[in-house]
Amino acid sequence: MQAYQIKSGQQIAGLEQVERSLAAPADHEVQVRVHAVSLNFRDLMIADGKYLSAGEAPVVPCSDGAGEVVAVGARVSRFRVGDRVAASFFPEWIQGAPTVQNSVGALGGARDGMLAEAVVLHEDALVSIPAHLSYTEAATLPCAGVTAWNALFVEGGLRPGDSVLLLGTGGVSVWALQLAKAAGLYTIITSSSDEKLERARRLGASATINYRTTPEWQEEVLRLTEGRGVDLVLEVGGKGTLARSIASARMGGTIAIIGGLSGFGGELNPFALIGGAKRLSGIFVGSRSMFEDLNRFVSVAEIHPVVDRVFPFRQAREAYTHLKNAGHFGKIVIEVNP
Amino acid sequence: MQAYQIKSGQQIAGLEQVERSLAAPADHEVQVRVHAVSLNFRDLMIADGKYLSAGEAPVVPCSDGAGEVVAVGARVSRFRVGDRVAASFFPEWIQGAPTVQNSVGALGGARDGMLAEAVVLHEDALVSIPAHLSYTEAATLPCAGVTAWNALFVEGGLRPGDSVLLLGTGGVSVWALQLAKAAGLYTIITSSSDEKLERARRLGASATINYRTTPEWQEEVLRLTEGRGVDLVLEVGGKGTLARSIASARMGGTIAIIGGLSGFGGELNPFALIGGAKRLSGIFVGSRSMFEDLNRFVSVAEIHPVVDRVFPFRQAREAYTHLKNAGHFGKIVIEVNP
Amino acid sequence: MQAYQIKSGQQIAGLEQVERSLAAPADHEVQVRVHAVSLNFRDLMIADGKYLSAGEAPVVPCSDGAGEVVAVGARVSRFRVGDRVAASFFPEWIQGAPTVQNSVGALGGARDGMLAEAVVLHEDALVSIPAHLSYTEAATLPCAGVTAWNALFVEGGLRPGDSVLLLGTGGVSVWALQLAKAAGLYTIITSSSDEKLERARRLGASATINYRTTPEWQEEVLRLTEGRGVDLVLEVGGKGTLARSIASARMGGTIAIIGGLSGFGGELNPFALIGGAKRLSGIFVGSRSMFEDLNRFVSVAEIHPVVDRVFPFRQAREAYTHLKNAGHFGKIVIEVNP
Amino acid sequence: MQAYQIKSGQQIAGLEQVERSLAAPADHEVQVRVHAVSLNFRDLMIADGKYLSAGEAPVVPCSDGAGEVVAVGARVSRFRVGDRVAASFFPEWIQGAPTVQNSVGALGGARDGMLAEAVVLHEDALVSIPAHLSYTEAATLPCAGVTAWNALFVEGGLRPGDSVLLLGTGGVSVWALQLAKAAGLYTIITSSSDEKLERARRLGASATINYRTTPEWQEEVLRLTEGRGVDLVLEVGGKGTLARSIASARMGGTIAIIGGLSGFGGELNPFALIGGAKRLSGIFVGSRSMFEDLNRFVSVAEIHPVVDRVFPFRQAREAYTHLKNAGHFGKIVIEVNP
Repeated sequence: MQAYQIKSGQQIAGLEQVERSLAAPADHEVQVRVHAVSLNFRDLMIADGKYLSAGEAPVVPCSDGAGEVVAVGARVSRFRVGDRVAASFFPEWIQGAPTVQNSVGALGGARDGMLAEAVVLHEDALVSIPAHLSYTEAATLPCAGVTAWNALFVEGGLRPGDSVLLLGTGGVSVWALQLAKAAGLYTIITSSSDEKLERARRLGASATINYRTTPEWQEEVLRLTEGRGVDLVLEVGGKGTLARSIASARMGGTIAIIGGLSGFGGELNPFALIGGAKRLSGIFVGSRSMFEDLNRFVSVAEIHPVVDRVFPFRQAREAYTHLKNAGHFGKIVIEVNP
Repeated sequence: MQAYQIKSGQQIAGLEQVERSLAAPADHEVQVRVHAVSLNFRDLMIADGKYLSAGEAPVVPCSDGAGEVVAVGARVSRFRVGDRVAASFFPEWIQGAPTVQNSVGALGGARDGMLAEAVVLHEDALVSIPAHLSYTEAATLPCAGVTAWNALFVEGGLRPGDSVLLLGTGGVSVWALQLAKAAGLYTIITSSSDEKLERARRLGASATINYRTTPEWQEEVLRLTEGRGVDLVLEVGGKGTLARSIASARMGGTIAIIGGLSGFGGELNPFALIGGAKRLSGIFVGSRSMFEDLNRFVSVAEIHPVVDRVFPFRQAREAYTHLKNAGHFGKIVIEVNP
Repeated sequence: MQAYQIKSGQQIAGLEQVERSLAAPADHEVQVRVHAVSLNFRDLMIADGKYLSAGEAPVVPCSDGAGEVVAVGARVSRFRVGDRVAASFFPEWIQGAPTVQNSVGALGGARDGMLAEAVVLHEDALVSIPAHLSYTEAATLPCAGVTAWNALFVEGGLRPGDSVLLLGTGGVSVWALQLAKAAGLYTIITSSSDEKLERARRLGASATINYRTTPEWQEEVLRLTEGRGVDLVLEVGGKGTLARSIASARMGGTIAIIGGLSGFGGELNPFALIGGAKRLSGIFVGSRSMFEDLNRFVSVAEIHPVVDRVFPFRQAREAYTHLKNAGHFGKIVIEVNP
Repeated sequence: MQAYQIKSGQQIAGLEQVERSLAAPADHEVQVRVHAVSLNFRDLMIADGKYLSAGEAPVVPCSDGAGEVVAVGARVSRFRVGDRVAASFFPEWIQGAPTVQNSVGALGGARDGMLAEAVVLHEDALVSIPAHLSYTEAATLPCAGVTAWNALFVEGGLRPGDSVLLLGTGGVSVWALQLAKAAGLYTIITSSSDEKLERARRLGASATINYRTTPEWQEEVLRLTEGRGVDLVLEVGGKGTLARSIASARMGGTIAIIGGLSGFGGELNPFALIGGAKRLSGIFVGSRSMFEDLNRFVSVAEIHPVVDRVFPFRQAREAYTHLKNAGHFGKIVIEVNP
């Protein structure tokens, strides 16, 4: 079967399509025919050699994929041939808190991932996908969807009517916008593009801020919340944003740190956290149990995630480049076996 | 000014309209011109003499009212003349857990309530009402709305995608249905009327059960949840419902006890709770802080509560009788100063 | 190897010692040489035929045992030969909430338990026992210790300085007393024996009540807590105790239902729960994760559980009878391979 | 009456004793004869002009004091003459989350504090002190004690058996050590003095680290926790400690930021938080409700806080200097009316 592989640091050009063999599923393993894969910023970081836990050997990249069960090992009890599934980012983090043990082996980094025509995984690493989603849509769940869920409802602990600030219109932010809207949250989203902000409003954003025309956007956040600040900020990283994100949160509020393109720059001022009794929470995707909770909500609320653009399998490099150009709104998907 | 008063146990016929004087607001008090009042089952229980904490003297009944601030005491800082407000069920329970101290003095029972042209209350007993609600709508918030909020999101701790079973289409159940829908919950509601179930579906119920045609409705709940049971049941009371409600909850789930018309009847089987690791939680309306959280959510989600029927001030007895006849869907309101 | 077996309903006399063969451990299984087993009230209920989930066939009774790993299957990674272990009550409930799936197969009921010279169990069903405990002491952890932990710190959510009422001096109550003392809780314990109450005081009880000389013991609980009531009651069951337990809890407090000898008797008054915003929580032992948390605490606080009396393996019936006579204080243990 | 006052930035030398008049208590006010006051690092920061929220005018310094009620206003209901009380750091933060509104007006900064022979405060700003504590001991509760409580049990949410790392032997760390010991936590404490570490062990520290002889102390923390890291770090601030504190916390653990002498220095690495799913939580003392919870625990566990040294009222400057020299272990107290 065909798969892509890449070595950490080889850049997008190093992404190459190769023929790989696939072992038959062992007792508790499941073979999945991959239908669609979605990209995350982490995939660019691995290509750029900036992702710390990536190894030396070439790996099949990408954590996020959805497909169909085509074979099961002798003792598999959770799935049957024909089931529609996706893989969990951390195959061994089932539930509870993360540990050093259960967070090794993330797909597409420490071990082979999903950008392949087929994969074989332990049955415990898989979840059923919502019935109303296409494979293309479901491929966006594992990393971006679970990260947004964890930030909003696990670590953030938001309740209906609470407020959240979303920075930009990348995959996690747009997922968070859709989840937040369906959960009755007040959402503020930022972008440098009025067109994207208009799309965000149509998706249910309560308020929008163009950070180019409003560079002191934290002041606008305070104005929109009557001086109080938001309950939660999803900080996706970027030079100079952290201090503004902290200023945008209410007293006792949370800034969920989702990613950091190249570090935030500048020194952390401890007084900004202490005086506001605020917390900075690192979000590291989530457990399989969070993935299942997300799927339950996506099903109940009949959410269809926003797919920015779909590329065919042979154009994986073009898909990566499209992500790198940062003009997208929502998720970028590669169809493997359409 | 005109007000109604009643003595505990005098029945609906004992409800009489009288002229009452009103003291000027003291330092921290606020005078409110009442526009609308809504009825709760508790008001019938007081008329029937079945509400334990009711006193001997005649009181102005009803806890739930909304109106306009018309005068403020010298040191009032939370409100100004012209503000639109409602009173909190327990004027002294501001936040945190209930205590013997902060739960005395519920309006319309232990002390004079809202069924009057004007009331004078401590400023701490009042909350601002959502801007998009009429007084008629806002009058339904204090008891039924807060009870539903507390059961679903405080005691119940539900998160998006969780499931809730609502018994009947009374005020609390319909409030809970609207809140649950806007919060992304899966809702099952019961009624003996297919017409009411049809209305519930239009309000967003995920599934409905006619308990007359499906007397073993707990089995249908299990079927609808793939054998798992719901995360929360709002048990509003009724002979023979408790055992079915417990059976309808998932392992580790909660049965919120909202009211009990005449007790549940029969002995509680402790094994049903132990073997299912389930919890029975008594819900006693809620604090002012819960009321404020509810209002924030109602505003963000732009919820308009369902008002079954509006009676003029002079027809308060007819309103009570309408409630007693139990044919309503949602809340019954009396307009005081329309 | 030798083991005891019993059929549900055969009474203590039906407990018989038999020779049983033991299969070699499969890939993920572990063979444990059992050193000590402790009894729980559930074991009497099974003998009496009153335990619902017991099957028809004779089973090796008892959920609680501790021993030494003597052989491991080919793929076992969690344990090595020589490790000191105990089995988890529910072999498949690892963490998170209980479910119908993970709570089947409790040891000594639905499947063979620990009253045997050796057992073979899945590696996931075992936990390491605290280094400072003898096997005799460790045998008391799985059911009584975990139940007390779950009630106090998981479902009860108690924090330092909170108060708890313990009914009687059976295994769960004495475990709870020791845990509560080491966690900085205020403890009240009841007994009909002043001698046992004196022992409880020496173990750290803050206050004691003789329920024979103080039959209205809930009034004494209120007096001891300055009218407030306790944060948590561990209700171990008994005719007529439930209403007093509810009256003993503070507003918003919890009554953890641990067991019910023969039902509580009488009708549950819903108003007692509603008016006090109290919750009745069924406690069904707990997960392996709770067991591990308990062990961590027992190790840090260097708690040695109270063992009432130790019987040799050949006197298992005498041990059962001693439990039935209800004169014990703490746990009753059977030494299997001393 | 006599009081000290200081202007922000005047250094310790600017602390001067003056005669001040005291208004009679208004309706809801209480006059307290101050017996003892304790110092916090914040008091030095105000003297140094480094505390942001300090105003321009001279203020009576110090937030922490305990004394006796000598007069009450006409409508005071919470206290009587003769009651033993302490003031809450934020007089208006009663319970729930902090807000911009309820966190203004901290004593000894934004408004007059406790270093005076008598003070007049709103009755809601006061709490009763534990009966077993002297005034000297009780004076250490309001800032250091409440901060330690909040970090450990509110924000940190620690449960019995959890582990905490304490940096140094200042007032908050020693308070936290005593609370942690009494709550059954595993404690690791650091110091540059083996003598202080020996004292910490006698107070119950589970393990100690001399950070002078073990400069890579985070490695020792990992070794002591079998590679896992601690559940909570109390980071009291200091150049270069933050990265080590983050490394010392387990995955999913919390670093409570208590104070920062002059900032932490260096850039915050977002990956350290994300990859470990860790959280940095700013702790801003706490609410009156937390103070009451602390007092309940201190009473139940009969904790006597460690007082390093007691100075007479006329030697307030010497007390400040003693704190500045940083050789203390525990709290420094000034006796006002012994």
